[in-house]
Amino acid sequence: MVEPTRHAFHDQLDHVGERIAAMAKLVEAAVEQATTAILEGDVRLAERVITADVEIDRMKIQLEEQIFEQLALQQPVASDLRLLVGTLRMSADLERMGDLAGHVAKITRLRYPEHAIPEGLKSTIAEMGSIAQKMVRTTSEIVSTRDIHAAEKLIGEDERMDDLRRLLFRNMLGPDWAHGVGAAVDLALLGRYYERIADHAVSMAHSVIYLVTGEKTS
Amino acid sequence: MVEPTRHAFHDQLDHVGERIAAMAKLVEAAVEQATTAILEGDVRLAERVITADVEIDRMKIQLEEQIFEQLALQQPVASDLRLLVGTLRMSADLERMGDLAGHVAKITRLRYPEHAIPEGLKSTIAEMGSIAQKMVRTTSEIVSTRDIHAAEKLIGEDERMDDLRRLLFRNMLGPDWAHGVGAAVDLALLGRYYERIADHAVSMAHSVIYLVTGEKTS
Repeated sequence: MVEPTRHAFHDQLDHVGERIAAMAKLVEAAVEQATTAILEGDVRLAERVITADVEIDRMKIQLEEQIFEQLALQQPVASDLRLLVGTLRMSADLERMGDLAGHVAKITRLRYPEHAIPEGLKSTIAEMGSIAQKMVRTTSEIVSTRDIHAAEKLIGEDERMDDLRRLLFRNMLGPDWAHGVGAAVDLALLGRYYERIADHAVSMAHSVIYLVTGEKTS
Repeated sequence: MVEPTRHAFHDQLDHVGERIAAMAKLVEAAVEQATTAILEGDVRLAERVITADVEIDRMKIQLEEQIFEQLALQQPVASDLRLLVGTLRMSADLERMGDLAGHVAKITRLRYPEHAIPEGLKSTIAEMGSIAQKMVRTTSEIVSTRDIHAAEKLIGEDERMDDLRRLLFRNMLGPDWAHGVGAAVDLALLGRYYERIADHAVSMAHSVIYLVTGEKTS
């Protein structure tokens, strides 16, 4: 085997960053569509999200293999090594986010033709979905730009998500809850899934800071 | 810096395996104690689990740093590289399992002095806790022994966990549910937490197979 030159290696490193950004775009679409599907009870859209997750999983495996190969062939140090290790971690985050969007979609499918979300809580779930989607979009931006200020900003953006989750729980556990146990169980899990998508976005922001600065912030 | 000899490097690799096994032991204790705490409404034990998670997180960070250093200094290839990459992944799994045990403990704390689990479902939660604990114990064994047959066996062991989770949901959503929305929400999340602990144990089994054989089974 011909060992690639250092120049070719750096092209490959750029390529790794592009693939993470491409994965993040697929995950962003999955989160957006999963949210639309659950709000509108659109089971066909939900099925599309579930099917599309296979491609996200495939990209993660390919990216892992590519990184493993580069670790073995290139013996990278310092910032190149951080990039590869950070990318391993980010691809695992994105794969999980794709799974979580799939879990949201599966609740849509499970309840069809009923709707999982009571009318009065649709705006809360819509906002959780929108925050999650924006956070994923920001991850794909910061992976490309390596803007650590944007990454630091992203770390604080799950606060609103936590507030919404608490609001959801206050609703379900309050005296006026009229939608029964089934809806509450769905909403508890949905709240958890969106919260975890936000957690993974925050984890990716820490990875970007780490690969740019070498500093562990989480 | 004096570069360690290959012999010293292999000692360090053994050491990495020992640290994963030590982490798994802490996680096993956390899962056991979190289950006891929630079944008995023991808030002091729950607090211990939450506090002990800090140590698991610390071990994960140390292990990551150590692996990063070895990747940079030793330029490992083939099975040594697989061991280091697999260990990175396993330490992330164990850290998450510790967090999940902490989430179980936090439900105990949130409900105290009430009990989160209705009497009739204690045996189901006890069994979920026991399966999770045994699966974590097996991970620490297979990390030490590198017994891939035991690892393959572990991969199937989350089936019973899935059955129990379905049983839990059938109970909560059935016509005889008399424990209200709050208990159902707690149980839905608890079911999810135990299921995720089992998922991470399965993921570790795949990592052990990968680092022994080089084959990706997940």
